[in-house]
Amino acid sequence: MNIHKILVVSPMHKEIQTVLEEKGLGKAFRYLPEEETGSADLEWADAFLAFNTKNDYDYSKVKWVHSLGAGVDRFLFQKDWDEDVLLTRTICSFGQRIGEYCLSYILKDIQYHNEFQSFQAAQKWQPMTPAMLREQKVLIYGTGEIGQKAAEILSSFDVKVYGVSLSGRQKDFFEEVFPVENHFSRLNEMDYLINTLPLTKKTEGLFDASIFEKLDAAGFINVGRGASLKESALLDALKNNHLRFAVLDVFSEEPLSKDSPLWEHPRISLTPHISAVTTAEEAVDCFVETLKNVEQEKPLKNKVDISKGF
Amino acid sequence: MNIHKILVVSPMHKEIQTVLEEKGLGKAFRYLPEEETGSADLEWADAFLAFNTKNDYDYSKVKWVHSLGAGVDRFLFQKDWDEDVLLTRTICSFGQRIGEYCLSYILKDIQYHNEFQSFQAAQKWQPMTPAMLREQKVLIYGTGEIGQKAAEILSSFDVKVYGVSLSGRQKDFFEEVFPVENHFSRLNEMDYLINTLPLTKKTEGLFDASIFEKLDAAGFINVGRGASLKESALLDALKNNHLRFAVLDVFSEEPLSKDSPLWEHPRISLTPHISAVTTAEEAVDCFVETLKNVEQEKPLKNKVDISKGF
Repeated sequence: MNIHKILVVSPMHKEIQTVLEEKGLGKAFRYLPEEETGSADLEWADAFLAFNTKNDYDYSKVKWVHSLGAGVDRFLFQKDWDEDVLLTRTICSFGQRIGEYCLSYILKDIQYHNEFQSFQAAQKWQPMTPAMLREQKVLIYGTGEIGQKAAEILSSFDVKVYGVSLSGRQKDFFEEVFPVENHFSRLNEMDYLINTLPLTKKTEGLFDASIFEKLDAAGFINVGRGASLKESALLDALKNNHLRFAVLDVFSEEPLSKDSPLWEHPRISLTPHISAVTTAEEAVDCFVETLKNVEQEKPLKNKVDISKGF
Repeated sequence: MNIHKILVVSPMHKEIQTVLEEKGLGKAFRYLPEEETGSADLEWADAFLAFNTKNDYDYSKVKWVHSLGAGVDRFLFQKDWDEDVLLTRTICSFGQRIGEYCLSYILKDIQYHNEFQSFQAAQKWQPMTPAMLREQKVLIYGTGEIGQKAAEILSSFDVKVYGVSLSGRQKDFFEEVFPVENHFSRLNEMDYLINTLPLTKKTEGLFDASIFEKLDAAGFINVGRGASLKESALLDALKNNHLRFAVLDVFSEEPLSKDSPLWEHPRISLTPHISAVTTAEEAVDCFVETLKNVEQEKPLKNKVDISKGF
């Protein structure tokens, strides 16, 4: 595939421009914020780079769409996609970033950061023995690039890491991978659940009472998509202590609405969708590598399977 | 060396008894709290196991003293030791425990746990991009069993780990090990300092203005000994922003005195000497292994070098 004209649409189009121009790719570029992008730009372009666009562009006019994020639900979820258009996504260091994010909250929990902070505030010398990572069992939903990297990081500490995927296919760094339809019987032994799944028809609302009610005071970390979680089921599970705490980085509506009950819940930690941020440098590195592979017609490990939705 | 009679003096003597009796070692044991231990018990015993004793026992009557902690300053610091008495210490999983402790506070910092907690309390959606471990430089004081294990853990994330030791001898998992007398010029590039050093004449008060004033907004983690730190220098360094924050697990006086200014400092996190707790199970495992090596006259990797003090 020959790519000459590239349209970059992103709130960080200027940073991307600075980094991309250093690469000297010899292509024609347009860098625009979303609100200034029109159909004439799409008619002009061979390739379209964007991050979480709100507009419904007519992508059939370009040869290739490259998502600047890992998730492509903004492009695919509840939409038709013209299969002649190539869709790729940014994967790069997301796995490492998400792995460090999850590890930070698991360590916060087993090292009793909150408890020691309270004791300090009360000037109370009260020893508690931190648990060790090797004593923990973690279940990761999604065993792709991101979930597997998180599994690699956690298993390097001898955490017992289990996986859930559609296929249930076994993968490195997991003790065992369960198919989603029959993982329920293993839930009660898990200390932490981590969701890394993309948003598709099959994962929408996946985390509901049928999962939570089988947990025994586990921690839940959502770094996948907000719409995979039924919020009311989460709140019930916290109340009934099926969940001890939740760490949420993604939400059905972002930014999270001011009147959401999640903000004030004492056992929920919120972060504003930062667990797998695309920096301009990384976005460009991933794009340049993908561009090279597209032009040389090499295999693309970050090509989206439209039928699966990720 | 033949060991028949073993005296165990510890606040957790009962837990140790439970675990030790399962081992069926065929030895005579006395398990006592410190306040009930007298000179007759020391005359009786071949081996003395203790953790942080307050009393000055006459150890010359036993063949072997085994410390239930990693530090042996309670036995050696500012005291004479009869070199005919073997002194060993518990090392076991301390390195792993201290490594996870330090990692938890470095991740807390680079993942902005405090900042996101404040934003959540203010119902503010304010993204910040977490830093990655591979972008960090960490200087570990002490390159022995514990410091090296911490270096192994951090370097597995591509943290740039440097070491400081008396000898400056290069070791695995460190980019470079500096001798203490000429490491000062490298301090300004470090993101975090971790002290794992034992308390000896050479490390008493080591962390003073001469180190802190060369730092550029670093984090300081003390998991070694409290008396290696000049508290007034620490407080000055926080005020002048040579230090951004400190995490202290050890103190000159433990429990920390009620009127210490450390309790209320907003940029100091205190924990009550829990980063390398000896559980009864681990203490017993380490003792049983050491006992076997002592009786079979095998090399002892946890033998204390009295002249060095660790």
